[in-house]
Amino acid sequence: MSNDAERPAARPTITDVARHAGVSKGLVSFALNDRPGVSAETRARILASARELGWTPNLRARSLSVDRSYALGLVIGRSVDVIAADPFFHSFIAGVESEFSTAGQVLVLAQATPGREETATYRGLAADKRVDGVFLSDLRAGDDRVALVRELGLAAVTLGRPDVESPFPSVSVDDGRGIRAAVEHLAALGHRRIAHVAGPSTMLHGRRRAEAFTTALVAAGLEPTAIIETDFSAVDGARATRELLGLGADRRPTAIVYSNDHMAFAGLAVAQRAGIHVPHDLSITGFDDTELARHTFPSITSVATDAFDWGARSARLLLATIAGQPVDDVELSEPRLVVRESTTTAPESESARH
Amino acid sequence: MSNDAERPAARPTITDVARHAGVSKGLVSFALNDRPGVSAETRARILASARELGWTPNLRARSLSVDRSYALGLVIGRSVDVIAADPFFHSFIAGVESEFSTAGQVLVLAQATPGREETATYRGLAADKRVDGVFLSDLRAGDDRVALVRELGLAAVTLGRPDVESPFPSVSVDDGRGIRAAVEHLAALGHRRIAHVAGPSTMLHGRRRAEAFTTALVAAGLEPTAIIETDFSAVDGARATRELLGLGADRRPTAIVYSNDHMAFAGLAVAQRAGIHVPHDLSITGFDDTELARHTFPSITSVATDAFDWGARSARLLLATIAGQPVDDVELSEPRLVVRESTTTAPESESARH
Repeated sequence: MSNDAERPAARPTITDVARHAGVSKGLVSFALNDRPGVSAETRARILASARELGWTPNLRARSLSVDRSYALGLVIGRSVDVIAADPFFHSFIAGVESEFSTAGQVLVLAQATPGREETATYRGLAADKRVDGVFLSDLRAGDDRVALVRELGLAAVTLGRPDVESPFPSVSVDDGRGIRAAVEHLAALGHRRIAHVAGPSTMLHGRRRAEAFTTALVAAGLEPTAIIETDFSAVDGARATRELLGLGADRRPTAIVYSNDHMAFAGLAVAQRAGIHVPHDLSITGFDDTELARHTFPSITSVATDAFDWGARSARLLLATIAGQPVDDVELSEPRLVVRESTTTAPESESARH
Repeated sequence: MSNDAERPAARPTITDVARHAGVSKGLVSFALNDRPGVSAETRARILASARELGWTPNLRARSLSVDRSYALGLVIGRSVDVIAADPFFHSFIAGVESEFSTAGQVLVLAQATPGREETATYRGLAADKRVDGVFLSDLRAGDDRVALVRELGLAAVTLGRPDVESPFPSVSVDDGRGIRAAVEHLAALGHRRIAHVAGPSTMLHGRRRAEAFTTALVAAGLEPTAIIETDFSAVDGARATRELLGLGADRRPTAIVYSNDHMAFAGLAVAQRAGIHVPHDLSITGFDDTELARHTFPSITSVATDAFDWGARSARLLLATIAGQPVDDVELSEPRLVVRESTTTAPESESARH
């Protein structure tokens, strides 16, 4: 293999692609830059030609001329341990990447670390024109990243709607609806003492799931019951479960709604270790319907959200924003409850039947 | 907040950092560019000053002048589902990011997708000077990415040693040692029929773990037994387990060594669902010692590798390569077996004792 193969002369140009696809150079440029005004069919033909010829965009030249970096950024603020255990981000990232195709976009991933704190990371990405826009995930109460990112002149999409004024479009899923579905399912099975193992109240989605839990309990005519806050980690989910199962017989829940799947896994193990049978003594539900929910015994009833779709829709919205196209907030399809083996009739109703 | 705050004039320069730290500009430049010749103490003082003043590197200017992008790349070739379930990559990425600190490096993450195949992704990263170097993970038998990346003129570090000639330094862990430790542990517990649920033989680490398994069996004086190949996914781990447990009573294993943790989780559920008690009827071991191995019931004996450290060491090696420093292959500390509840005395030896 000769290095000559990599010289610019050997690189197919837009002219080559246009000739191959039988269209004008202008149309190729439009299609390859994801601009509107190209029919889906023509666009597909152009992309096929580009692929066949091995065309890749000369982004360095392009980014110098139009002051764009053709990169999107994701800054992850959660701790390493929590991230490693949470499949959400991987699915989300895979969804984002699925939108990049031949357009030559890349994702810049930055983890805030003790040596590089979050604000400095966003400032660095903007100052160096590393990225054209960012995904704001894990929104917090009064999230100051919204103002920061605006001030830095970056485009952005928020995952969920912030509780502060925001100029950015959002991609949301109605978490509350998922939690309500779980509570209604358990109430219909006769459960009266349902507890919630919540995410951190500093994170909007953790807080909203907890609020939806209380609202759903009230709507089902049930008393308010224990809500235990965690940091979303398995170890904290286990701790919360031990706390709930240690309550007196008259207060111990017969069902627990967890705010994510791996806390539900950890809770399942805590119950089993204590000789509490799931689901006959205790029903549990997870959230996110990750792959492992199908691979436990009993398998876990979980609220299915689609992190991959979330990533893909967010990327599309962010790319459209950067391209100056009109955009609107996106509401993802409603989360639905996937009922498996970890939920069944409440123990009290069973004994009432005997 | 005014946009003026973001104008270059407001941005602290190296001169400001030098004045604040009480050192020369040259020394600041050396420290901030990770070059050798600055004492650890001085470097720490300079970084503290840079942080305090909110200094960020002007990478765009820098990358134009020195033809460097100050970015490292990771192209993930595995399918989305497998990745989402595998905590390895997140820990690895977190380790990589932990090395970036104020030097302004970023990680460009690219997932090969049906619309953007792997070779084109590497070519794009190189042609656009998106990255200065890449991490080559999930090495395959006869991996042609080694020649490709060399041809593209990128620096690289391989995760593990390739079986093809490679000009790149590697960061390896002795997987075989971990598998041997698992087999020896089980053999010492009296197990005679030990099976292996392996990763794909096209991936070097999957293949090497399987080879080490056979070698360890022979060393322990045991007969060769079933090795079932999978794609590393939980669903395939479950399928392999059903196959092994469906063997006749004289061939069914009393212990299974899994090539990763989430296949072991899935296998645990398959056994429990079939009424096979883990560990009394069946001992199982995982690989990677992910967080959930501590949060199942029974908890899972697993081979502990340190993906975070792997990421950190790989990043340091790659940055040193790019900086033109002499480098050498790195061998990570030996994986060790963490014994938990999923392994115990073989059922035969128990009955022999009665």
